[in-house]
Amino acid sequence: MAGGQGATTKRVYAFGAGKSEGDASMKTLLGGKGANLAEMSNLGLPVPPGFTITTEVCTAYYANGRAYPAGLEAEVDAALARVGALVGKAFGDATNPLLVSVRSGARASMPGMMDTVLNLGLNDATVEGLATLSGDPRFAYDSYRRFIQMYSNVVLGVDHHQFEEILESYKEERDLFLDTELQADDWKSVIAKYKSAVKAALGRDFPQDPKEQLWGAIGAVFGSWRNDRAEVYRRLHGIPESWGTAVNVQAMVFGNMGETSATGVAFTRDPSTGENYRYGEFLINAQGEDVVAGIRTPQTLTKRAREAMGETAPSMEEAMPAAFASLTEIFAKLEAHYRDMQDIEFTVQQGKLWMLQTRSGKRTAKAALKIAVDMCREGRISEAEAVMRIDPYSLDQLLHPTLDPKAPRDLLLSGLPASPGAASGEVVFSADEAERLAQDGRKVILVRVETSPEDIHGMHAAVAIVTARGGMTSHAAVVARGMGRPCVCGAGDLKIASDDESFSVAGRKVKKGDLITVDGAAGKVFAGRVATIEPELSGDFATLMGWADKARRMRVRANAETPHDAKVARQFGAEGIGLCRTEHMFFDVGRIIAVREMILAEDRKGREAALSKLLPMQRSDFEEIFRVMSGLPVTIRLLDPPLHEFLPHSDEEIDEVARASGMDAGKLKDRAHKLHEFNPMLGHRGCRLGVSFPEIYEMQTRAIIEAAVNVGAETGEPITPEIMIPLVADVKELQMMKNSVDAVAAAVLAERKARLSYLVGTMIELPRAALTADAIAGHAEFFSFGTNDLTQTTFGLSRDDSASFLPDYLRAGIFEKDPFVTLDQAGVGALVKIAAEKGRKARPNLKLGICGEHGGDPASIEFVDGVGLDYVSCSPYRTPIARLAAAQASLAATQKKSSLH
Amino acid sequence: MAGGQGATTKRVYAFGAGKSEGDASMKTLLGGKGANLAEMSNLGLPVPPGFTITTEVCTAYYANGRAYPAGLEAEVDAALARVGALVGKAFGDATNPLLVSVRSGARASMPGMMDTVLNLGLNDATVEGLATLSGDPRFAYDSYRRFIQMYSNVVLGVDHHQFEEILESYKEERDLFLDTELQADDWKSVIAKYKSAVKAALGRDFPQDPKEQLWGAIGAVFGSWRNDRAEVYRRLHGIPESWGTAVNVQAMVFGNMGETSATGVAFTRDPSTGENYRYGEFLINAQGEDVVAGIRTPQTLTKRAREAMGETAPSMEEAMPAAFASLTEIFAKLEAHYRDMQDIEFTVQQGKLWMLQTRSGKRTAKAALKIAVDMCREGRISEAEAVMRIDPYSLDQLLHPTLDPKAPRDLLLSGLPASPGAASGEVVFSADEAERLAQDGRKVILVRVETSPEDIHGMHAAVAIVTARGGMTSHAAVVARGMGRPCVCGAGDLKIASDDESFSVAGRKVKKGDLITVDGAAGKVFAGRVATIEPELSGDFATLMGWADKARRMRVRANAETPHDAKVARQFGAEGIGLCRTEHMFFDVGRIIAVREMILAEDRKGREAALSKLLPMQRSDFEEIFRVMSGLPVTIRLLDPPLHEFLPHSDEEIDEVARASGMDAGKLKDRAHKLHEFNPMLGHRGCRLGVSFPEIYEMQTRAIIEAAVNVGAETGEPITPEIMIPLVADVKELQMMKNSVDAVAAAVLAERKARLSYLVGTMIELPRAALTADAIAGHAEFFSFGTNDLTQTTFGLSRDDSASFLPDYLRAGIFEKDPFVTLDQAGVGALVKIAAEKGRKARPNLKLGICGEHGGDPASIEFVDGVGLDYVSCSPYRTPIARLAAAQASLAATQKKSSLH
Repeated sequence: MAGGQGATTKRVYAFGAGKSEGDASMKTLLGGKGANLAEMSNLGLPVPPGFTITTEVCTAYYANGRAYPAGLEAEVDAALARVGALVGKAFGDATNPLLVSVRSGARASMPGMMDTVLNLGLNDATVEGLATLSGDPRFAYDSYRRFIQMYSNVVLGVDHHQFEEILESYKEERDLFLDTELQADDWKSVIAKYKSAVKAALGRDFPQDPKEQLWGAIGAVFGSWRNDRAEVYRRLHGIPESWGTAVNVQAMVFGNMGETSATGVAFTRDPSTGENYRYGEFLINAQGEDVVAGIRTPQTLTKRAREAMGETAPSMEEAMPAAFASLTEIFAKLEAHYRDMQDIEFTVQQGKLWMLQTRSGKRTAKAALKIAVDMCREGRISEAEAVMRIDPYSLDQLLHPTLDPKAPRDLLLSGLPASPGAASGEVVFSADEAERLAQDGRKVILVRVETSPEDIHGMHAAVAIVTARGGMTSHAAVVARGMGRPCVCGAGDLKIASDDESFSVAGRKVKKGDLITVDGAAGKVFAGRVATIEPELSGDFATLMGWADKARRMRVRANAETPHDAKVARQFGAEGIGLCRTEHMFFDVGRIIAVREMILAEDRKGREAALSKLLPMQRSDFEEIFRVMSGLPVTIRLLDPPLHEFLPHSDEEIDEVARASGMDAGKLKDRAHKLHEFNPMLGHRGCRLGVSFPEIYEMQTRAIIEAAVNVGAETGEPITPEIMIPLVADVKELQMMKNSVDAVAAAVLAERKARLSYLVGTMIELPRAALTADAIAGHAEFFSFGTNDLTQTTFGLSRDDSASFLPDYLRAGIFEKDPFVTLDQAGVGALVKIAAEKGRKARPNLKLGICGEHGGDPASIEFVDGVGLDYVSCSPYRTPIARLAAAQASLAATQKKSSLH
Repeated sequence: MAGGQGATTKRVYAFGAGKSEGDASMKTLLGGKGANLAEMSNLGLPVPPGFTITTEVCTAYYANGRAYPAGLEAEVDAALARVGALVGKAFGDATNPLLVSVRSGARASMPGMMDTVLNLGLNDATVEGLATLSGDPRFAYDSYRRFIQMYSNVVLGVDHHQFEEILESYKEERDLFLDTELQADDWKSVIAKYKSAVKAALGRDFPQDPKEQLWGAIGAVFGSWRNDRAEVYRRLHGIPESWGTAVNVQAMVFGNMGETSATGVAFTRDPSTGENYRYGEFLINAQGEDVVAGIRTPQTLTKRAREAMGETAPSMEEAMPAAFASLTEIFAKLEAHYRDMQDIEFTVQQGKLWMLQTRSGKRTAKAALKIAVDMCREGRISEAEAVMRIDPYSLDQLLHPTLDPKAPRDLLLSGLPASPGAASGEVVFSADEAERLAQDGRKVILVRVETSPEDIHGMHAAVAIVTARGGMTSHAAVVARGMGRPCVCGAGDLKIASDDESFSVAGRKVKKGDLITVDGAAGKVFAGRVATIEPELSGDFATLMGWADKARRMRVRANAETPHDAKVARQFGAEGIGLCRTEHMFFDVGRIIAVREMILAEDRKGREAALSKLLPMQRSDFEEIFRVMSGLPVTIRLLDPPLHEFLPHSDEEIDEVARASGMDAGKLKDRAHKLHEFNPMLGHRGCRLGVSFPEIYEMQTRAIIEAAVNVGAETGEPITPEIMIPLVADVKELQMMKNSVDAVAAAVLAERKARLSYLVGTMIELPRAALTADAIAGHAEFFSFGTNDLTQTTFGLSRDDSASFLPDYLRAGIFEKDPFVTLDQAGVGALVKIAAEKGRKARPNLKLGICGEHGGDPASIEFVDGVGLDYVSCSPYRTPIARLAAAQASLAATQKKSSLH
């Protein structure tokens, strides 16, 4: 071996024959595949010997203008010699040739992204030796032609279609159909044609020197690290280019040496159900690529599986009992060692089992839950580990109805998967009609160009929502997720007819009343009814959530504004309400008239008269919610949206409203015109309404305090409402609003001769609030981060309008994730941190929470746990996700802390 | 005197008779009036003796629940005894009574905000003494009745109307008209009625004890510090409540002791023109309040003034030559001492001149300039001091035409003073008509509900602009200021008829074509033509600006996008262009068709075809600007507004455009609908356009580089364009845009075989850009702070929409100033600081500037000088203001620095 200057300059790590220079902990240096091959070898499992060229060589290769570091060749030669010695063959030896595979293997799995070359070392001479050694010339020449084809394509850059055409025309000329029908001489003829094609394409012969072949393949693997596919994959998965890939060179074993040979893939447990029973498939007399090609149907692994599927082809258990027994034994060893379900690749060569890969297996959410809970019960992992094993995002699948995977379906259109769940219903185009039909007990799906706050009642009445416009965080998406309704948004191909009687998509027409099915998790809409499966919140789910609840530091609340939502939230484990918006209550059909009267009033007195009609209704809303949430905190946000949202917009709507309500249409128009805003998001809303029209907040405060007093007296359990002032930019706004809240509360409590504790706090949803949080904390008892608006203002990016160009941004890699879904740590997160620090400095016991959409996003939850927030609040249906994510954040923080000690 | 425990507990400071315990530097402790009375006394000027109770007593008074500190009474008694000794009288002595005035005097001047009591010490006994001593019973009883009236009102809270009614009915009953017609006995009768009225109102007698009177008056002055008027004034002028007021108690002198007595006010130089000639007015036989009451016409100070005004009443110079000579001598002393023009109050009592007040005099902008330059030439002040003397805000008056103050006028309506200057013209209601009439050489004033970017050509054609909606930073206001057009915004009473043929205001109707006059500085619109005066940028202006230019550190650039604006900017001393917007060029009538073709194109190819038509036009725009600005830097911002701004909006407009341009109306509507945004400010604009449609920025880059090469070759002076990427939120956006600019530039320079330096930088106008400025600076050669948008996003406040509630905010004191006019230091300023620090840390030679509206606001300029910006950029007409403000910032910083050493 070429000597290095210490451990860091060692560039080639050997494995196989029961001992390796690497192990599973060295993924950074050896890549995932290399590290696991070394580990398996160390475990004494049958791994064909080989070696790994490190990822550092890849980095050096690029740093040095695609040149290898000095000394690498000698190291590779030495490692190759060791492999040859172990298998009793020699690389390039014409009579007893060592053949190798060359595979990439990065730190993170990048399936199919980089290149592989098999059967390397074959040439016109060694192929003869292979034929003699194996006693199977057909096998030898088939292997050679596979090698030429693969190598020419991957390493030499010759288009693979050329080879496919040569083979096809050869078979056509001879009326052959399957590759297996070709004999040794056929392959010889094909090989000659392949070699001519290579020469014609490149102007030189296919390389016969095995060493030249080897370095060509190594170069191709390193080169593939920067091919387009790999770059796109890395960008999408956040894998830094600097990691580089390792190269694994390994002695070939052949699953295609006759009926005692085979190749297969297997999972140590069922990846679909999580059942603790081996699962997999294999092909006799085949190489790995044949399994992938899908020409032959693979056979089952076990007899039980074969019988369950009604197959006749024998299972591996039946066809190769000895190899199967070895495999079963290895499964046990691997699970005991890795403490997780494994996904493996294996080859049987003439009866002998070889392991080619092992890794943690991908699984469904349901399987992940079962495996984690089972493994904990089996004593393999701790409760904390079980909690860490579940991807919180995946829970969403379990909390909603899903399409029956076996049900036939007729895809109508695709859009964004805005809110999960599946439902079937009749198409309707207006919120009012949705409500009317729903009252008759019919299931309807509301289809709109886009939705607005006026559609809330129709969205609530519908079993699902479809919109043509809007992104993942459009009004429709946000409201649907909050209500737990399946929703597909931004289905751009959807065209609603101007008479609102039908919609068309790609030439198909769907009329009002026609049945459709929405799969919100997939973002698909199907014609007719597709059968669905109800979610089963099984024992495993409950068990794991229990463990999660024990582990987490942060509380989890829900955003809810109706008694129904509040009930759902409690069922899903919410520990309070973090955001009870009050504007939805204003849109209620029974109230909107009074709201409009208030808006049209000429003076404070007129507004107060209208507000006095709303007071008893708001009070009873709050009473109902306080009853449901009894014993838990409820944060109520005072009115937030601009007043024009409560007025009709188009002239026709105005006329209609005027007719219906007896208001003056001209006055209505005039007021709507005066209230019109260019940028309502940045307009006269939030506490700005409270500054201009103090009587609105005074009415709401009175309703809250009276409701709390009433329900407290009724239940005997005191209610502590948390009154939240929205859109504060300056401490003086908060100060003024808090003074007003305190004055009204004092008046109510004096009238009622009652006592009540309540908190007054604010949303932190504007950059200026975050930057001046120390001053604001002087008058706020809690902060709730409104990260939706904070994201909009920090980026200067309208949630409603970004759908048109966000895809460009994701494609160009400017945004790795939609910042309205996952909190942007560099910008918005920096403000959250600043605000939390400044706020706590000014008021050490300041309660901190988050109530933006991010409150239900696991990556964001981990971030805010690190910032020290007390709770997250999310839509009721995301509560379990938040509970799990909060637990993982706590566990990860503890782990990090203890690893520092 | 009551002993204290050191200097800080001394509470009463004596003055008068040539020496004082205080001086002019002690304004904080003694208030402005008290400090200047002490100073004048120290200078040996004739000041009636007295004493000042410090502001600390006021603070202590409030801190102790409106109680005086122990020992104060003894100090006051001692000081009063000293005053009596000096004037040879005794307080409360029935035969030789000392009478005093009691006046407030805070650190900052608060004219008329607090209370004054004169003639204190009079009672039924002392009034007899005064009658005997003065030999003028009428004077004595008149003084007594004045005292009762003033004291009862100010100290006892009796409504002053009561006294006025008593006096009026007394005069009516006796057929008397003027107060001077009343004799001693009349006043005695009136006094009796006054005292009955006081008793009736309060249930007790008017206080006869002079000591009780004195402490009552002192308490009233302290109390007045927190009256409503004072609180409003303090809030408006940013005066902290904690400062408190001092109380000045001073021996009375009487200007109303007959024809050898008088009272007057004077300025040491003419406050209107700045001419170095004394100026003022006086009244013989009168007290100060008579001058204010305005019943008698005051006489001139000098013979010259009397002659100039054609008056017959003798001037003071003629009527009281000795006193006038004393006054003239005192003027010279005061100017020599204070080194500034003084505003004084004096009284002549029986031929002897007494000084009652001196302070720095208020003056017009023109006078301020002349006085500063003259005083510097006279050797009284340095150039730096002269520069510091001018309020930069006041320069605005000098740079625009103004209404002739003597011209008659007929006020039509009032609005916001959105852009200074005055102009007369015919009313028009559409931008197109404005342009058409202007081309015929007619002067027009554009009257609109509000303006939008489509109106730019009409605004440019108009001599003034009036809008019914929008605030100081609405589109109309910003554009008008940029163009130097007078503008009145937000004239809410203005109603434009639906046929666009007239507007009405408060019942008056003004038709299209009618003549009106706009005074933009006052926010007024007049019917008909009002004569105007052209600005005179006299020698004094040029001289002072020269001194300012020598003093300042920061460069001053202008925001300009037309050759005309660029020329104006150079004339006003701009040292480059800090913001050349490119969208106005897109609105040009000759180009909008190509712009719309580009927007309607289905693909990149179609867009490129349309853009290729725009290329030569954009190039020639840039060529013209580069020629004008030859030798100076020009920062060009690539396209910023959302594309829908270039499309017609209403259905009628769309049909019209479609007819005129031959485009398909349906397609236009469809596209306009698709491009519609809820919050365009936060929408698909800025570099987001560059990401989605790279070809737009490529065309603009090509136009800039080609123009720079062409003009460089033509003039022999190399052009260094600075290309600015707008609305960057993330470094990756900038990186992508910069790569594109560099690629196009390289291509153009290769084609042209030319060399050119250029810079690529970015606006910092989003909080996220500021927070991640270190990363952004890695790819930006300069930052330009776009503080308009940064203010909008930091506050979450739309500039266009805030007009409806900003007044509520200013009234409630939540905002002290409109944050779109003066940079908000706590929030927006914090982000500017963060960005400057992070940016400079990552790239020490990063060029930093500001191009928002704040770049022309003196307070904001001082702030950004402190942050270390390299330049400010503002509208051409504000350039001189910015130059002066930058100079003052530099001088203040130097002063602060040297005072620290």
